Amino acid sequence: MSKFTLAIHGGAGTILKSMLTPELEIRYKQGLQEALDAGYQLLQKGGNALDAVEAAVCALEDNPLFNAGKGAVYTHQGDHEMDACIMDGRTLDAGAVCGVKSIKNPIRLCKSVMLHSGHVMLSGEGALDFAIQRGIETAPDEYFHTPFRYEQWIEIRDSDAYQLDHRKSAEDSPIPEGKKFGTVGAVALDSFGNLAAATSTGGMTNKKYGRIGDSPVVGAGNYANNQTCAVSCTGHGEFFLRAVVAYDVSCLMEYRGYTLAQACEEVVKNKLVKMGRENGLIAVDTQKNYQLCFNSEGMYRGIQSSSGINHVAIYGDHD
Amino acid sequence: MSKFTLAIHGGAGTILKSMLTPELEIRYKQGLQEALDAGYQLLQKGGNALDAVEAAVCALEDNPLFNAGKGAVYTHQGDHEMDACIMDGRTLDAGAVCGVKSIKNPIRLCKSVMLHSGHVMLSGEGALDFAIQRGIETAPDEYFHTPFRYEQWIEIRDSDAYQLDHRKSAEDSPIPEGKKFGTVGAVALDSFGNLAAATSTGGMTNKKYGRIGDSPVVGAGNYANNQTCAVSCTGHGEFFLRAVVAYDVSCLMEYRGYTLAQACEEVVKNKLVKMGRENGLIAVDTQKNYQLCFNSEGMYRGIQSSSGINHVAIYGDHD
Repeated sequence: MSKFTLAIHGGAGTILKSMLTPELEIRYKQGLQEALDAGYQLLQKGGNALDAVEAAVCALEDNPLFNAGKGAVYTHQGDHEMDACIMDGRTLDAGAVCGVKSIKNPIRLCKSVMLHSGHVMLSGEGALDFAIQRGIETAPDEYFHTPFRYEQWIEIRDSDAYQLDHRKSAEDSPIPEGKKFGTVGAVALDSFGNLAAATSTGGMTNKKYGRIGDSPVVGAGNYANNQTCAVSCTGHGEFFLRAVVAYDVSCLMEYRGYTLAQACEEVVKNKLVKMGRENGLIAVDTQKNYQLCFNSEGMYRGIQSSSGINHVAIYGDHD
Repeated sequence: MSKFTLAIHGGAGTILKSMLTPELEIRYKQGLQEALDAGYQLLQKGGNALDAVEAAVCALEDNPLFNAGKGAVYTHQGDHEMDACIMDGRTLDAGAVCGVKSIKNPIRLCKSVMLHSGHVMLSGEGALDFAIQRGIETAPDEYFHTPFRYEQWIEIRDSDAYQLDHRKSAEDSPIPEGKKFGTVGAVALDSFGNLAAATSTGGMTNKKYGRIGDSPVVGAGNYANNQTCAVSCTGHGEFFLRAVVAYDVSCLMEYRGYTLAQACEEVVKNKLVKMGRENGLIAVDTQKNYQLCFNSEGMYRGIQSSSGINHVAIYGDHD
């Protein structure tokens, strides 16, 4: 019997039940379920892990509730610079883009970079040139405009602050941010035993200087290897870059013989806690084990598997 | 008695004695020795590893023979986009820039990013804005012009080719490139037992689409951690990104208990050879062990240590 699994996340952080209206909670859960379904349907039809993570992340990018694609936060300049990465655990091929504008679905561009550029990582206007040449869908600035992200930016744009921790609460904003790390991601095991990972983000509100986080970096925010696991991270990107988090999970499995659960636990609950940072990650291995692991109050997340699991959640525990 | 070590490289690849004139060989070795001396003098005076690797890499960036800073290759657009990274093994702090123009010494900018930006990685024009704000020295386009790099570019600029393997030989070019990966780097152990690594490059001749290689990526082309080692890589960046090479060396030591030599051997002579790629890396640990490891015909390299070693070399073996 074929086995397949898809896990997704939409960011981790201080996400408390008291911060979400019942209506908004429903919208988030619907968004997560739609993304899960988009990827899982492909796996059910015998599709591969790479296409499944791409489809799931595209759905999250298209949903304005999440900080990726439509719904990406504003930079200091008032536009949107997005980072993303996709990796094929079968071949260790990877494609990534950073600081890219005007791309409707950055994760699709990543796949094209992986398959057609001869490179792994493209940046800025050059990445956009490549996208146009490959016929990747672009979108005008207005497409990326969302009123609540705009408000978040207006509030701090004249300061030097950048916002990881969006302090707006449910009372004054439709999107409660608490202290939330806005990134989306998906990891999958397909029926052929192949793993893949995809991660996409708009980064930090009011970011400047062309700041790049961990999401587009192979081994930091995103990694997949059939020998070990597929991982997608969400958290304070600077710490994930320095700790090479996604590859660290893989190395603990490969070199120390840890299970997926042990490796995720060590990295998220021990190493990253010592760095004092709230964060989370999702991971799967070829044995259909999965982890939705976070040390913060909540993580937008979902899991669907051929063993019958189909669940989305936001806060701690299972709700 | 205090122990300290500094190792440097100026790129690896098909570098054969038959390709260099005696005069050019002397110039390369002088350049390597000057860079070694620049960093080693600081270590001798009780300076720290971070300042030593910065000084050594600055010297290599200032030398037009090497593909970093002055001497950086031309992009498809006819300018110079540079990538670099520095990391402090004591704190795991890191700073990196990618796709940055007009910066005389990208490695100095990396250190400023690490110390003053609150971020790890800055890109493109944003990184330049930060540099100007911090008073980092810029240089006009003419500064980066070198006749032989310009010729390399003119030869292929109208094609879609990008050049890792510069085929010019000693007969028609003052700089024989063979199949050479132009990157510079330094790793150091200081008398306090701290490690640091620095890496800088102009990337590939005729590169386009804002291509970014492994050099500016923590864990791929550059890594330092007092618990394990400091590593700087040179090779086909795409493979180093996918294989997370520098952090892999560290993980083999930390998780599998390999010595520095065993870890470097496994990565360079086994894993990367299986990927079919010529490459090299330099590494040191806190026990004053060092490795100048490559699977290609040559690597511009140097090592100087408080145990009395002071040696630069270009080809295989020790010459």
